Amino acid sequence: MADKWSARDPLSVHRIDVEDAAGVRLIAFDRPEVRNAFDAAMYAAVTEALAGALEDGATRVAVLTGRGPAFTSGQDLNEMAIIASGGGGPGAGRGFRDLLDVVVGFDKPLLAAVHGVGMGLGFTLLGHVDLVLVDEDTRLRAPFAELGVPPEAASSLLLPERMGWQRAAAALLASEWIDAEEAVRSGLALRVCSAGTVVTETMELAGRIASFAPHATREIKRLMLAARRPDVIAARAREESAFAALFADPGTNPGSQLTAGLER
Amino acid sequence: MADKWSARDPLSVHRIDVEDAAGVRLIAFDRPEVRNAFDAAMYAAVTEALAGALEDGATRVAVLTGRGPAFTSGQDLNEMAIIASGGGGPGAGRGFRDLLDVVVGFDKPLLAAVHGVGMGLGFTLLGHVDLVLVDEDTRLRAPFAELGVPPEAASSLLLPERMGWQRAAAALLASEWIDAEEAVRSGLALRVCSAGTVVTETMELAGRIASFAPHATREIKRLMLAARRPDVIAARAREESAFAALFADPGTNPGSQLTAGLER
Amino acid sequence: MADKWSARDPLSVHRIDVEDAAGVRLIAFDRPEVRNAFDAAMYAAVTEALAGALEDGATRVAVLTGRGPAFTSGQDLNEMAIIASGGGGPGAGRGFRDLLDVVVGFDKPLLAAVHGVGMGLGFTLLGHVDLVLVDEDTRLRAPFAELGVPPEAASSLLLPERMGWQRAAAALLASEWIDAEEAVRSGLALRVCSAGTVVTETMELAGRIASFAPHATREIKRLMLAARRPDVIAARAREESAFAALFADPGTNPGSQLTAGLER
Repeated sequence: MADKWSARDPLSVHRIDVEDAAGVRLIAFDRPEVRNAFDAAMYAAVTEALAGALEDGATRVAVLTGRGPAFTSGQDLNEMAIIASGGGGPGAGRGFRDLLDVVVGFDKPLLAAVHGVGMGLGFTLLGHVDLVLVDEDTRLRAPFAELGVPPEAASSLLLPERMGWQRAAAALLASEWIDAEEAVRSGLALRVCSAGTVVTETMELAGRIASFAPHATREIKRLMLAARRPDVIAARAREESAFAALFADPGTNPGSQLTAGLER
Repeated sequence: MADKWSARDPLSVHRIDVEDAAGVRLIAFDRPEVRNAFDAAMYAAVTEALAGALEDGATRVAVLTGRGPAFTSGQDLNEMAIIASGGGGPGAGRGFRDLLDVVVGFDKPLLAAVHGVGMGLGFTLLGHVDLVLVDEDTRLRAPFAELGVPPEAASSLLLPERMGWQRAAAALLASEWIDAEEAVRSGLALRVCSAGTVVTETMELAGRIASFAPHATREIKRLMLAARRPDVIAARAREESAFAALFADPGTNPGSQLTAGLER
Repeated sequence: MADKWSARDPLSVHRIDVEDAAGVRLIAFDRPEVRNAFDAAMYAAVTEALAGALEDGATRVAVLTGRGPAFTSGQDLNEMAIIASGGGGPGAGRGFRDLLDVVVGFDKPLLAAVHGVGMGLGFTLLGHVDLVLVDEDTRLRAPFAELGVPPEAASSLLLPERMGWQRAAAALLASEWIDAEEAVRSGLALRVCSAGTVVTETMELAGRIASFAPHATREIKRLMLAARRPDVIAARAREESAFAALFADPGTNPGSQLTAGLER
């Protein structure tokens, strides 16, 4: 286990706040100084908080949100540049895959209260969320084409399914920004909340779901997932294979683009 | 066959009106005193009317509607409480499955003129309808989470497909009401009709389809179905298995919630 | 190869304009006197232009458009009537299938600048296009039900996926016209462009995509396609089988409807 998420012990670092009340677990990304970017410690903390929500009989619903002005800017690009340069050690990239494993199999209702910027994983993660509420200031972007990397988190499957092929293609192939209205119109999110209300509204909806028989809401979610799970697993496998091939080829390794991205 | 839909002979009871004209069969749920709830006799009558529409070469298109103020309130909860308490006999639940069998394989165009309340099956049935027109007073609800039961009629697959994951999750996990505008915006229905016009407008659309070569419209419907049928069958099997497990476990049998629901 | 697309040499006839610049290949249907209808020569020309775009390392993105007032009126009905009457020779219908083969496997971003009428293939082809921009005068129609023929180009799968079941059923079963706003609202197209700007706007979007690393945009498209390809191939096979059965049966061969259609 020592090398599971890199040489450090990622769980010893503060990355998230977890609040449990009335059957709802709120998981708040809390690294606002870097717009809640996901480093190894963040992956480990969110993975553990979600896995715990599944194991804990008292938790019926989980809610994701971000502290500060952003939802999350996604993968920490400093860490990705290290991985791209081969300096990540044997556990490199495992944090992301561990998080996805628990998200893809999360068979309790999963909500998100999104505000501000959602970049990369801050966007693609929403393809796995059952009910996404967005503050009117939300702006989402998948910078894969710009960074020269393949899509992640089964987004090559889930964004077309959830947003329609056209808007997914605009997001994935053209790296276009998506605002709150477009997130709802395309089907990625449920509704827009007026400024400052998104966490409250999401918690109200979570509370409503948590008021129902937990065996029923879990069964409903499990059945909804069951219809899509094999395709999601296959999409992840294709994407990870493409990612590995890209990094293995010096002509396509995105190290330099990433470094350039960091400097902008 | 005596026990096919319970000990009674369900077809001897009036439950529906059937009108055939110009290639269109109109099937109107006609039990307005209980908002067109589906008991064994209603399941049997609608199943027979749809099966007959498939067999009859003169019928090119079928249309479902409800008499009185509601489309249908779905499963008769009195009968479901009897089934939940083990008093339904060997044919319990078979009426529902027989109806679904014919609906899932219905390879002629199937339309619905919906007005007022559609609850439970009155909502999930629409996931199998090709063209749903809704009166502006339409209100749909899937009370599965509230009643503590799994989704039915392949709705765990079809509502996400037709409405998008977000709106399907709001319907299935939060038992939220859906109005006419939302039914159209989400993709569940084709268009909203002004008060009192939905049957006329649906019959006009049915008549237009019935004016085309029947081998072509049937082939088009058959090809559209073929792409989805295996997934629909698999979803029904998962849901029925979940339903059976729920009823077999005293801790989750919804008998008491159903009785409480009846008293509200 | 002599009979590949009929006895003539179709590539010797002018059917399209091809312009390559800055990584973008523009393929413009240029047969405005018959609203850019697809005859054997048009199929061959577009197939070759797309296949060439895949092979050419300098081409990163392809854009389809039509010269004159129409996008394309689809299959040339004069030629289809000849095929229906058995006069098409051994290569009849092969042009369509060859075009579809390259479109279904087109793993670079594919855009369309649509204006005016898109009929038949001019509509169903859009189910394979990643980013469809439509002039406000766009009008699309799938006349299969009216002509008495099955759907084509995997549209029995792709139109429900891209437009939702309800709007696809209205298009396929009722041969309803779809205007520019409806194309966007349903998810078939990305956005409406004001009169006369659709080619410019589409080329700008294509240019943006072409500015990214081509291995990444191709990989993104390849991964998006991979999730859908097996279903698309299966849908085409079902449709082609239905088409063959229809033509083989004198009772359903659409020759007379096609001839009548030509006279309207």
